[in-house]
Amino acid sequence: MINTDNRAIGIFDSGFGGLTVLKEIEKKLSNENIIYFGDTARLPYGSKSKETIIKYSKEIYNFLKKKNVKLIVIACNTASSFALDTLQSISDIPVIGVIKAGSRCASRESKGNILVIGTKGTIKSEVYKKEIHSISNNINVYQQSCPLFVPLVEEGMLDDKITILSIKKYLDNYIDKIDSILLGCTHYPLLKESIQNTYNKNINIINPAEEVAEEVFNILKQNNQLANNVNRTLEFYVSDDRDKFIEYGSLFLGYKIKNVKEIDIEEYKA
Amino acid sequence: MINTDNRAIGIFDSGFGGLTVLKEIEKKLSNENIIYFGDTARLPYGSKSKETIIKYSKEIYNFLKKKNVKLIVIACNTASSFALDTLQSISDIPVIGVIKAGSRCASRESKGNILVIGTKGTIKSEVYKKEIHSISNNINVYQQSCPLFVPLVEEGMLDDKITILSIKKYLDNYIDKIDSILLGCTHYPLLKESIQNTYNKNINIINPAEEVAEEVFNILKQNNQLANNVNRTLEFYVSDDRDKFIEYGSLFLGYKIKNVKEIDIEEYKA
Repeated sequence: MINTDNRAIGIFDSGFGGLTVLKEIEKKLSNENIIYFGDTARLPYGSKSKETIIKYSKEIYNFLKKKNVKLIVIACNTASSFALDTLQSISDIPVIGVIKAGSRCASRESKGNILVIGTKGTIKSEVYKKEIHSISNNINVYQQSCPLFVPLVEEGMLDDKITILSIKKYLDNYIDKIDSILLGCTHYPLLKESIQNTYNKNINIINPAEEVAEEVFNILKQNNQLANNVNRTLEFYVSDDRDKFIEYGSLFLGYKIKNVKEIDIEEYKA
Repeated sequence: MINTDNRAIGIFDSGFGGLTVLKEIEKKLSNENIIYFGDTARLPYGSKSKETIIKYSKEIYNFLKKKNVKLIVIACNTASSFALDTLQSISDIPVIGVIKAGSRCASRESKGNILVIGTKGTIKSEVYKKEIHSISNNINVYQQSCPLFVPLVEEGMLDDKITILSIKKYLDNYIDKIDSILLGCTHYPLLKESIQNTYNKNINIINPAEEVAEEVFNILKQNNQLANNVNRTLEFYVSDDRDKFIEYGSLFLGYKIKNVKEIDIEEYKA
C-alpha cells in the first residue's frame, strides 16, 4: 500500500538565495506543496553570531510548524552550519541542511581536487572543507571567497562582461588544479552557466541544492509521504519588503512570484 | 581671548564607510583627538527600519557622551537620514550629519545638473534629492544606485578593470548631461580618482565628508572650542570583529589602524 501526505514542504533562508534550493525541489517533486520563508528583515545571516542564528531559526521553525509542514529544508549556508543540530534535536519532523548534502555530493563526485567557493563568512569558517574531510580524507579542498558574486547575481548581471571578468579573477588560479567546483552559496547556481562557459574544460559544478532535492525525495518516499497534489501550491512569506522579494525572487526563479505575504516573525518566539 | 577645548570629536557609522569622513576631519583639524565608533555587529544599517536606526543611534550617542566628546558626527547616510533630528533634540553638544552638508555643498557648487550616486536604499529614499531641492529648485537631480561599488571598495579593487567597467555601466548614461556627481555613500570617495580618470571631462565630484570637516571646523572655531593637542590621539571602537575592522579600516585610511577596542554597545541603552 502506498500512502500519501499532502502537507507542504517548508523551506527557509535569510532572503532570496534559498530560492535556488526551492527551484530544485520544485523540479524534482512536482506534486508537492511548498511554503518558503525568507527572513528579509534580518538578512544577512553571514555576519551574525551562532546564538543569534539559532534564535532566528527556532522562530522560523515554529512558524513553519504552525503551517503544518511535513519536512523542513534549511536553504541557507549560515543557518545550516549553526542551527541544523539544534532544530533536529527539537523537531518531530525531518530537518535537512545544505552543507551536509553538498559535502556528501562533493565527496562522491570529486576525482580528488575540488574548489569550494562561497561568501567570506562561509569560506573563513571552513565548514565545507571540514565536512568533506569528515567523509573522505583523500580530497584536496581548495577554498576561495567571491564577494562580488552576490551583488552581481542580485543585479541580474548573470553573463555581463563584468561578471566574466570577476569569474576569471576568482577562479583562474585554481582551474588547472581542480576537477570540481562546489557552489557553497545559494546565490551562485545562477552563475553556473557563466562559469562553465568561461573555461574550455570539463568541470563538474556541484550545486548542493540538487542533492538536497534528492534527499527530500528519498526521505519522503521512504516514509510513504510523497504527495499527489494535482495542482500544487507555492506560498511565500517574508519578514520585510514584499515588493523587493517579488522583484528579486522572480529573477531567481525565472518566473513571476505570486502569493507573497509579510509576517512578523518575532511573534513566533518559543 | 582664545579658549581651547581638548576633548575629542566623536564620529560614528555602521561600519567602515565613516572612516572616509574621519579622514577629512583628520586632515582639516590636525590637533583634534578623535573617537570613532563602527557598529560592525549590526551593519548594514541601509536595510533596517527608522525606529531601529534611532534606537541604535541613541545607544551610540550615550557611549560617545560617556567618552566626553565635544561634538558628534553621524558619518553614515542612513543614520543621518533617520536619526539626526532625534539626536539633535536630546543633545547638549552639536550633532552633524552627512546629508545636509553634502546637499548644501551640491547646491552651492552645481551648475544645474547633478547626479547623486549611492546604495539602493539611499537612492530609493530620495533623501539627497529632497534636501537639495529644499535648498534650490533650479537644479536637476539625477539619481543612480551603484550596488557593486561597496563590494569593489571592500575588496580593495579601486582601479581594477572590473571597477572601471562598473563605473562606465552606472555613469555612462549621465555623463554628458551633468556637471557634478555627489558621492552619496561613504564608501565611494575611494573611487573618486577612478571615476575622474574614466572620463575625459571636467566633472566636479562632491565628497560630503569635505563639507562635514569644514562644518566641524567652523562650529568649533565659533564656539572657541578648537583643540591644541600637539600629539593628537585616534581611538577606535567596534561592536564586533576587531581584526576585520583593522584589515578593512586600514584600506580606507591608507595607514595601519591601531588602538581598536571591541565593546558591547547594547550596554549603552538609555
